[in-house]
This record gives sequence, C-alpha cells and structure tokens, in this order.
Amino acid sequence: MKPLVLGLPHNERLVQSLVTLLEGDAGTLTVRQFPDGESYVRVESDVRGRTVVLACGLDRPDAKVLPLYLAARTLRDQGAARIILVAPYLAYMRQDRIFHEGEGISARHFAAWLSSFVDGIVTVDPHLHRIHSLAEVYPIASRVVTAAPAISQWIREQVPKAVLVGPDAESEQWVSQVAREAGAPFVILEKTRRGDRDVEVSVPQMARWSEHTPVLVDDIISTAGTMIQTVGHLRQAGMRAPVCIGVHAIFAGPAYEDLVAAGGERILTCNTIVHRSNQIDVHPLVARSVLSLLA
Amino acid sequence: MKPLVLGLPHNERLVQSLVTLLEGDAGTLTVRQFPDGESYVRVESDVRGRTVVLACGLDRPDAKVLPLYLAARTLRDQGAARIILVAPYLAYMRQDRIFHEGEGISARHFAAWLSSFVDGIVTVDPHLHRIHSLAEVYPIASRVVTAAPAISQWIREQVPKAVLVGPDAESEQWVSQVAREAGAPFVILEKTRRGDRDVEVSVPQMARWSEHTPVLVDDIISTAGTMIQTVGHLRQAGMRAPVCIGVHAIFAGPAYEDLVAAGGERILTCNTIVHRSNQIDVHPLVARSVLSLLA
Repeated sequence: MKPLVLGLPHNERLVQSLVTLLEGDAGTLTVRQFPDGESYVRVESDVRGRTVVLACGLDRPDAKVLPLYLAARTLRDQGAARIILVAPYLAYMRQDRIFHEGEGISARHFAAWLSSFVDGIVTVDPHLHRIHSLAEVYPIASRVVTAAPAISQWIREQVPKAVLVGPDAESEQWVSQVAREAGAPFVILEKTRRGDRDVEVSVPQMARWSEHTPVLVDDIISTAGTMIQTVGHLRQAGMRAPVCIGVHAIFAGPAYEDLVAAGGERILTCNTIVHRSNQIDVHPLVARSVLSLLA
Repeated sequence: MKPLVLGLPHNERLVQSLVTLLEGDAGTLTVRQFPDGESYVRVESDVRGRTVVLACGLDRPDAKVLPLYLAARTLRDQGAARIILVAPYLAYMRQDRIFHEGEGISARHFAAWLSSFVDGIVTVDPHLHRIHSLAEVYPIASRVVTAAPAISQWIREQVPKAVLVGPDAESEQWVSQVAREAGAPFVILEKTRRGDRDVEVSVPQMARWSEHTPVLVDDIISTAGTMIQTVGHLRQAGMRAPVCIGVHAIFAGPAYEDLVAAGGERILTCNTIVHRSNQIDVHPLVARSVLSLLA
C-alpha cells in the first residue's frame, strides 16, 4: 500500500516532494496554536493500518518537538501502523558526551525520546562525531542520507574551474571526497603558529590557484564563524571570490548577513532547512532512503 | 534529608520561595540556548541520592518542556533519587476528549510524557473539567493546590463591601464557595433570551448592590473574553468598577490591555505565572503541598 505523507507546519515543500517521489498519498494534518500557546492537533485523513511518512525538520527544535510528539501520538491513537519521521535536519547531535561535570548528554536523551514515539527516522548528514553511527543512539530503524553526491554534482555543473578548500587538516577527508566526485582539485589551508595568539594561515602553492574559483563546503552553517574566517584567509591570499556551500542552513542570528559581508558572494545550501540560500535539491536522495527503509 | 530545590529559567522567584518555605537547599541548574536554538543543560550541584524539587511553570509550554525533559534526564543520570516537579500552572488540561473526529487528546499525551520523567507533580488549580482528578491522567504522585482560600482571604482583607459576581449559572458553585470563605454575598448574572442573537444580561436585585464593589473571579485569564463581557454587563447595570481576579495570568496577546480598556480597573492574579498583576501569594500553599507529597 502507498505510504501516506503528512507534515508539521513549515514542511510543505518537503511534503510535496515526498508525495511525488514516493508516489504516496497526501494527507491532511492540522497543527496550530491556541491563543495560550498550546498546540492543537487534528488528523484529517484516515490513517488506520497505514504507513505514515511524517515530515518535520528539526532545526530550532525546542518548540517543534512537542507538536511533533502530539501529532505522532494522535496518529498512533487513530491506528497508524507505522510512523516514519523524515527530519532532513536532526537536532541534538552535538552534545554527545559530558565535556564538563554535570552536563547532560542531550544527544542520547533526545534520541531516546524521539525513538519512543516514531518507528523509523530518515535524516541528512547528522553531525556524527564521537557518535559514529545514528544506530548508537537511535534504537529505531534509520537511514542516513549523504548530501555529498548532490553537492559534487552541483559543483561539477556550475563551477567551471573549481578548487575545493578545506579550512584545516581535519576537513581533508570530507573535502577530498567531494573534490574527487566533482572532478576538481582540492587544497587544505596551512597554519603556521608564530606565537600563542598569532597563527598565520596560508594557501599552499597559491600560484596554481589564482585562476580557480575556491569552493568551501561545510555540513552545518550555524554562526558561520569558520567559514567567515576561511573566506578572509582566501581574500588575503589573493584568491577569487569563493563559493560557500553548506548542507544545513541554520544561519543563527545574523550569520547569513555576516557571511555575505565577509565576502561570501555566492552562498548556497541544500534544502534540508528552508532558507533563501537553498539551491541544491536533496529531496530525491531523501525519498530514495525512505523507500529503502520502507522496503 | 532536606530537598534540593532547582529551577528552570524564569522560575527564580518560585525557587526562592520554595527554598525558604521548604527549608531546602538551593542548587544550581544552568539551562541556556546555543546559537542554533538547542538547549544546553548543566547541573552544578551534587544530586546523588537527593530528592530534587524542580520548579518549572508550564504556561506557553511548547518551548519549555524539552529543556525540562533534558534537565530531568540529566538529574536522573547524575543520581537524583526522586524528582518532584512544581508547575504552578499546568499545561494541556483542556483538550481532554475528542471534540471533532481526528483530534488528539493532548491532555493524556502530555501527561503520559511528563509522567515518564518526573516522579511527582504539584500544581495549582489545573483546569479540571471532563477529567475530574489529576490522577486520571497522571499516574505519578500528585498534589493539587486550591488557590480559593488565598483569594478569599485577599478579598476579605482588601475589599470592604464586596459582592462576588458569577457570569453564568455554571460558575455558581465556585463563586459561592469563594464568597462564603470571603464572608461576602454573591450574585449570578441573569440571561434573558429575546431572540437568536439577542441575549439580555442583567444583575438580579440591582438595587441591593449599587454601593458594593463587584468582584469577578476566574481560574484562567487567557483571552479575557468572558471577563471583558462581564465587566461590560456590570457597567451597563450601573455597578461600581469591578475588581477582576484570576488564578492564572495567561493574558494571551493584548488580553491584559483589553481588560484594562474594558474597565477592569483593578486586575490581580495569583503568582502561579509571573505577571505584573500578581498580588496574591500562593507559594505558601504550594510549599505545603510539596511537603505533604514528600512526607
């Protein structure tokens, strides 16, 4: 049977994509706020025995998860057989251990709660660091979509003479992979420490890259701090204006404007979080993972 | 052993009251937001083996409950023996049945989730309607504080010639009780229907009350719609300017200003939700219930 696709508010585009790509049925879920700030949930489709694909991005998560929980519980009460959450951006992946005594491991707490009311989850490039796989914290069925192929393809098609730039040695593995798939060279910035606070950053073999367009790629652009710094280093080295690519367009506070002001003339992101910089469509990759999970 | 009192942000006054009234220890709980909108939790007190009294009002609940959940889970991880939530205002008590097909019974869903991570709850006048007792939906230990005695005492001390006013027949039981405890008379407004949309509201035996100060009491002032209407009827009938009392100062949007504009010259509430109208202190009653639950 076809899956039934429903979405929380502000996920309309994702719902539309999923209905088309999964050849699913579009359902109606109403979630709105009462004047007192509580959420009202109503499922206006017959969900008995159905597999429900529930779209809900989880950036700025705190006010989104209770409506999501109430929606999932309501779907369950009304007989939904299976609920698959599609959260292109998954929250609470960063606080994955106790850095200072007394801290909560919110990655585990959040995962435990989410896993208590949905049966499966599909997400794009979650911030995996000390947690090596989503399955370590999410006991439910899961699929992780990698945006890299879509980003590489975009670079290959849109940036004629690209050079991928990694801000530091840690980024080499990821940057080199995107570069290889994009058929472009890459360069990792070099740091020379001159003193406690004096670090010089330079572009190795600068002469080779003066006619290239530098391309910066990061998973999450939140405050955009690292990217703004790197853009600065490239300008100082005399490189062309860079293309800045992020998977997840968090852009906290004035981050987007700050990045533009720093010289990020072309800023673009994948459509995991709705933002005016969205240019790389990862919904087909998401849909493919949903189908694999449903199979 | 003394309880350890901790609070989520914006519950500082309640924490202070509870520390004093329970003769408890004041602990330190840090909850703040990262730039990307996720919450950070750190418990800076030794909670091992302790009974923790956790203060967190739940008006405008959606953005508050995830930080509350993360705090409770962190306290548990660090060895707290028992967590008692003090939520002077408890959310999600109104959607207590399915009014229209497809609706979620959020009162039950919310209660189930809250009950999964705290061991007990103390609240003030929850909106009990079709749910007759908190225990019907909250399987954990609970105590319900009634604000009526504090309100009656305030009226007795502050309003020399009071007459309690009930907006309709349904309010009679509650209004008559507050009136009796305040040592004041009460009157219930009379509705005479003249047509489909034409209802005349009058004050019975108006002549008796022209020198009295009318006192309106309600449990939750949210949009203030009912109270604004009632104030209008009293003015029309030629009564004095009324005193408007609410237990819970939700005041959604411009409700407070609207009530003032309608002629609510004296508006006052209990301190269950921090608001400039707070004048009736129910913290001693709350503390007494916490002690009874801990005993």
